[in-house]
Amino acid sequence: MAAYKPFEEVRRIAVLGTGTIGASWTAYFLARGYDVTAWDPADGWKQRLQAFVDNARPQLKAIGTAVESEGTLTMVDDPATAVSDADFVQENAPERAPIKLDLYRRIDNAVPATTVVATSTSGLILSDLQDGIGFAERLVVGHPFNPPHLIPLVEVVLGKATDRAAAEWAHGFYGHIGKHAIYVNKEVPGHLANRLQAALWREAVNAVAEGLASVEDVNAAIAQGPGLRLALMGPHMVFNLTGGKGGYAAMLEQFGPPIEGWWKDMQKTPALTPELKAELIAGIKDEMGDRTIDDLEAQRDERLIALLKMLKETAA
Amino acid sequence: MAAYKPFEEVRRIAVLGTGTIGASWTAYFLARGYDVTAWDPADGWKQRLQAFVDNARPQLKAIGTAVESEGTLTMVDDPATAVSDADFVQENAPERAPIKLDLYRRIDNAVPATTVVATSTSGLILSDLQDGIGFAERLVVGHPFNPPHLIPLVEVVLGKATDRAAAEWAHGFYGHIGKHAIYVNKEVPGHLANRLQAALWREAVNAVAEGLASVEDVNAAIAQGPGLRLALMGPHMVFNLTGGKGGYAAMLEQFGPPIEGWWKDMQKTPALTPELKAELIAGIKDEMGDRTIDDLEAQRDERLIALLKMLKETAA
Repeated sequence: MAAYKPFEEVRRIAVLGTGTIGASWTAYFLARGYDVTAWDPADGWKQRLQAFVDNARPQLKAIGTAVESEGTLTMVDDPATAVSDADFVQENAPERAPIKLDLYRRIDNAVPATTVVATSTSGLILSDLQDGIGFAERLVVGHPFNPPHLIPLVEVVLGKATDRAAAEWAHGFYGHIGKHAIYVNKEVPGHLANRLQAALWREAVNAVAEGLASVEDVNAAIAQGPGLRLALMGPHMVFNLTGGKGGYAAMLEQFGPPIEGWWKDMQKTPALTPELKAELIAGIKDEMGDRTIDDLEAQRDERLIALLKMLKETAA
Repeated sequence: MAAYKPFEEVRRIAVLGTGTIGASWTAYFLARGYDVTAWDPADGWKQRLQAFVDNARPQLKAIGTAVESEGTLTMVDDPATAVSDADFVQENAPERAPIKLDLYRRIDNAVPATTVVATSTSGLILSDLQDGIGFAERLVVGHPFNPPHLIPLVEVVLGKATDRAAAEWAHGFYGHIGKHAIYVNKEVPGHLANRLQAALWREAVNAVAEGLASVEDVNAAIAQGPGLRLALMGPHMVFNLTGGKGGYAAMLEQFGPPIEGWWKDMQKTPALTPELKAELIAGIKDEMGDRTIDDLEAQRDERLIALLKMLKETAA
C-alpha cells in the first residue's frame, strides 16, 4: 500500500453526483473535516446540496460524528475539475452502466495517479465498469447504506481489474473516518447487506401472500421482537447468545435441526403480481392510519439518531 | 367474549414451568401488579425463580414496565393447585408434546371454567396438543420472544379446537398488560417471527458457506446497516419509506424487479454440515476475541434496556 496516500494526508474528497446518496456522503465528509469538491449535472443541484448539508449538520453533531472544524464545500461545473486535486473520489452517478462509464471516461485523465475512486453502486457489477478505464485498478465499490451520513456500513467490493491494495486502502480509509467497512469477497447482485435484507423481505412477503399474518402484524413480528436485537448484533452473534453458555455450538446442536426443518417449509419465492402488490400497499395504508410519510420519516430519523447515540455511548 | 373475565378483574396468574421463559413471564406479571402462582417440577426451582425475579425487577423499572405495587409470588408443589384459582394460565413446560399433554391432563379438572390457558410453545403445533383436553377450546399459543420480560412481541395462534373468543381474549389481555400481541393465522412450524429470523439466518449462513464474507462481516452487514432500522420498524414499513414520498407503491415499482432478480440468485438452502458448523463457530470465536459470553450478554442487556427505554420515550 506504499503507493497510496497515508490516511492522515487526505485533505480533499471529490463527490460526483449529489442526489440523496452523494449529498449524504458530502455532509459526512465535511463533518469529518474534509474539504469536499462536488459536481452534479442536474439543474438546481447546488441549492439542494447546500440545503441537505445544512439539515444534516445538527444530526451529525448529535451523534458525535462531527469534528471541531468542518471542511469547506466547493461546487464545480465539471467532473474533471472536481477530481483533479482529490485525494479520494466517491462517485454516486445514476445506477446505469453507460452513465457511469461515460463519467469515468470524462474524468479518466484528471484523476491523480494514486487516488482511489469508490463507486456507491448498489446494483451494478464493478467488473462491467472497468474496461478501458485508466484508473480501473484504483476503482472499487464503496457501497453505503442509506442515509450514508448516519448508517455506519460500507461494503467494499473488488472488480476484475481492482488492485487489492486499492481496496484495502478504501476499507482502511472508511474505517479511519468512522464508517464500518466490510469486504464482500465476490461480485454478486446486491452485494451482501441488501441480499440479507431481501431474504428477510422474501419471507415477509410470503407471510402476507399465504395469509399467515397481516402486513402490520408481520412488521410487528420483527420490530417488536427479533429486530430489537438486530440493531445490537448480527444474525450469527444473535444465535451465538441463543446458545447460552455453550455459545454457537450449543445453538447449532439444539436449534439447527428444527430450523433446517423450517427451511424446507420455506422454499417459496413469491411473484410480485399486481394483486399481491395491491395487498401489500393496502396493508401499509391500514398500518399508517392518519400518519403521513413525512410523519414516519421524522420519527424514524429521531429514533435512528437516538439509537446511534446510545450505541456509541455503550460501545465496549 | 361475554364468557371470559373482563381484563380489569384479572388478579391471579398461574405460571407452569419456570425455566428461562417461565421465570421471565413471572417477573413480568409480578411487575405489572398481578399475583403469580408458580409451579415447576425441577429440584431447586424456587431459589432460581426468586433470583431471576429479583434480577429482573430493576430492568423492568428502568424501562417503565413496572407498576407501583408489585404482585405477590406464591410457589406451589402441584400444578393443579397453581391453576385452581387462576384468572389466566401461562404454560412453559419443555418443548415435547407428551410432556405438555401429561401436564394438561394433570390440571384438566382444576382449570376454572372461564380461564384461558396460553402455551409458550415455540416449536409445537397446538392442534397436536388438544385431543382429549377439557379446556382445549380455551387453549391458545401465546409465544413470547426471549426474554419475555423485555421483548414486547407475543404471537397468538389458534389450534383446531380453540374458541376464537378465547384467542381474542388472550390477544386483548396481552395488549392490556403492555405486550405487543399479533395473530398468526395458520399453524406452521416456528409460527411467524422465528421463520422470518430463520429466513435471514439462511442467507447469513449461505454468505459464509459461499465465501461471500466472513462471519464477522456478515454480522456487521446487518448490525451496522439494515438492522438499525429493523429495531424501529418491520420489513414492509422499511420499504414503504424506501419509496420516499411515493411510499410502498413507488418502492415496489422501482426495486421490485431487481429484488426479484436477487431472489432467483438466492435459492440455495445450506446444509448444516459439521464442516460448515465448525466454520461458523470459528468465525464467531474470531469476532469475540477476548470477550466472553457473559461480557456479550451483559452488553446486549444494557443496550436492549436503553433501546426499549428510548422507543418508549419516542413513541408517537
